[in-house]
Amino acid sequence: MDITCIVEKKAQGARMASKILANASSVDKDKALIYMADGLNAGRDFILSENRKDVSAAKRSGVSKAMIDRLTLDVCRVKDMAASVKAVAKLPDPCGSIDKMWKRPNRLIIGKMRVPIGVIAIIYESRPNVTSDCASLCLKSGNAVILKGGRESIRSNMAICKVLQEAVMKAGLPADCVNMIEFTDRKAVTCLLKQDKYIDLVIPRGGEGLIRAIAEKSRIPVIKHYKGVCHVYVDKDADIKKALKICLNAKVQRPGVCNAMETMLVHKDIAGRFMPKAVKALREKGVEIRGCERSMKFSPRIKKASEADWYEEYLGLILAVKIVDSAQQAMGHIAKYGSGHSDAIVTRDYAASLEFLKKVDSACVYSNASTRFTDGFQFGFGAEIGISTDRIHARGPMALQELTIYKYIVIGNGQIRK
Amino acid sequence: MDITCIVEKKAQGARMASKILANASSVDKDKALIYMADGLNAGRDFILSENRKDVSAAKRSGVSKAMIDRLTLDVCRVKDMAASVKAVAKLPDPCGSIDKMWKRPNRLIIGKMRVPIGVIAIIYESRPNVTSDCASLCLKSGNAVILKGGRESIRSNMAICKVLQEAVMKAGLPADCVNMIEFTDRKAVTCLLKQDKYIDLVIPRGGEGLIRAIAEKSRIPVIKHYKGVCHVYVDKDADIKKALKICLNAKVQRPGVCNAMETMLVHKDIAGRFMPKAVKALREKGVEIRGCERSMKFSPRIKKASEADWYEEYLGLILAVKIVDSAQQAMGHIAKYGSGHSDAIVTRDYAASLEFLKKVDSACVYSNASTRFTDGFQFGFGAEIGISTDRIHARGPMALQELTIYKYIVIGNGQIRK
Repeated sequence: MDITCIVEKKAQGARMASKILANASSVDKDKALIYMADGLNAGRDFILSENRKDVSAAKRSGVSKAMIDRLTLDVCRVKDMAASVKAVAKLPDPCGSIDKMWKRPNRLIIGKMRVPIGVIAIIYESRPNVTSDCASLCLKSGNAVILKGGRESIRSNMAICKVLQEAVMKAGLPADCVNMIEFTDRKAVTCLLKQDKYIDLVIPRGGEGLIRAIAEKSRIPVIKHYKGVCHVYVDKDADIKKALKICLNAKVQRPGVCNAMETMLVHKDIAGRFMPKAVKALREKGVEIRGCERSMKFSPRIKKASEADWYEEYLGLILAVKIVDSAQQAMGHIAKYGSGHSDAIVTRDYAASLEFLKKVDSACVYSNASTRFTDGFQFGFGAEIGISTDRIHARGPMALQELTIYKYIVIGNGQIRK
Repeated sequence: MDITCIVEKKAQGARMASKILANASSVDKDKALIYMADGLNAGRDFILSENRKDVSAAKRSGVSKAMIDRLTLDVCRVKDMAASVKAVAKLPDPCGSIDKMWKRPNRLIIGKMRVPIGVIAIIYESRPNVTSDCASLCLKSGNAVILKGGRESIRSNMAICKVLQEAVMKAGLPADCVNMIEFTDRKAVTCLLKQDKYIDLVIPRGGEGLIRAIAEKSRIPVIKHYKGVCHVYVDKDADIKKALKICLNAKVQRPGVCNAMETMLVHKDIAGRFMPKAVKALREKGVEIRGCERSMKFSPRIKKASEADWYEEYLGLILAVKIVDSAQQAMGHIAKYGSGHSDAIVTRDYAASLEFLKKVDSACVYSNASTRFTDGFQFGFGAEIGISTDRIHARGPMALQELTIYKYIVIGNGQIRK
């Protein structure tokens, strides 16, 4: 059978499994999750030996050290994967809950009930732990999942998927609740993205290039974020100590992630007091600063920023800095150059805070806190399957609730339409 | 300038207007809506004279009588359009409301605030009243709209749009909040559907052919429903009087709409008592019945249904009927042949009702009521912009709430991530 046929069959199988999974009880789903966690621990040697093959192959093909690190599993990482799956089992089941219910004048009772989306495809890069994370979240929310990982991690992913499928079957659910595309050929993804008859949603996880390619080709709705060009705006009335703490945290606590600050905007009236301290603290942490002309006068070590810098997601120890004349100008900058991910104001001014929260149109808008909190766990969701900067279905951190949709249930007693 | 350039410029203009509209106050938006309603009444002669040109052109080109009827405006219809716009002004503004708000252990307060989606394109067929209906709902929910109506109604739509734009400007909002694509060329739609940089959502309204063509071509998310193959299942324990009333209402009260019943499923144990009465009542209303073999024994006037009949949306006085052995079989039939729109059970059995509501995976699932209630007004939303049988963002009747999305606002006091 050729690749496209196999992918289509897999999608069809996932659709059928999804119908059964959608009606599985919370107890059965949690049982499957516990078995999955146990299976990961019990199958550790198998998973690690398959992972070693991936790692050697990757080393031979000369991929970067960072990618080798992302790819490599060890006893600890497999234990963590199992623990994550177990934690998902403990979260509340979103399905079947009624968001709201109301009565119409004709006494019809209408309720909005949470139900699974159906079949979700997750396309990701080299981290094998994404396999078990995504499988567990989809299963918990009643969705069948089709996983497509990077070519470097194919053996690890297949091993993990095998363990997960066995656990799902042991719990009495169809093995096809969890599926893996085992082809590394690009044709497989192209074909997968055409299965709009069987797949309801695609969530790509990875770099901007991967995500753009998927969004371009997909016939299925895609929820995604391309990048996180996050800003912290230090208002003229900012508490300087808090502003320093927040900017430092947003930039250096973990610079390689999408919710880290990439551009700092500073009101001209506070720049004289704030900038010398900020530049010193940032440079002590090894941050290279690229600034507008006005900012450059605060330190000879600030390099001149180009227009491209304002759009840049550095994902590293580089920061763009701009001095602005007003909160309006800061918000204008964010609207023009930002990516609608996470943006913060630091201010003691009540009106400025309110206006920023209202007018900045990003998935997450902060007043006096670090942008680094944009994360499903930090928001209290107990999980995260991705972040959306799109404008339909979900924005910001996505977890179990965002993997569901609703149906209306209408309870009558013989009502007819007049 | 060629068509694609003009369409792109229009999309860009709508995006810019949407940024201003998103921050307009409820008062200003309602003012614009009142001016729009007043403008429709004041501009009635102009609108009617442009409409007469469309109608004559349509008659010359020999379109169907039904389409001429949908196309034709008169004093009453324009008054109704204005009244609808005024009614939208009276609805609550969905924007800025906080769905929920919670506190994290670190005292961060996180709120989910409703905001407009951005720019919405509506592609529809020949009814000119859709122009003002959609424009008013989009404006109320803070979205800029790009309207693309059918070629037959182009002069009427342009006249209505001109009136609406003048009203929007009079209220101090950008004219580009309401836009109309004035080309009847197909290239215009193809180009419109590529403007994913400026347009956030496409809602097509019309026949299945139009909608499929749009879904196929669009690079922008589309929310839609193809058709309504709605079922009423008469369970073995149904109250026969209620079942007759509901089935009759679902089939004949307005057979040409998507929430009308197309297939009636009858439990074998009640068929002997129910079918003769049902067939008589339906036939008295002029309904042609196409049934399974078992159903045919209840009347010589029942024609044999083909496999294609179970998939059919008749939109007229034809009904498919099938006798089933169990509620399971009925639900299986609905899952296989239904369109996920609206399906009902009629029963006095508590467990059967609960199971149907839980297991049938349609946008609207009814217990003991007519499927004809699937409608934004009947649900109490005060409006309707369309119905979705998709599985992300919104399902069932869509109104103001469904034209919005949320952003997270995070209120801190210097919190940083550990």
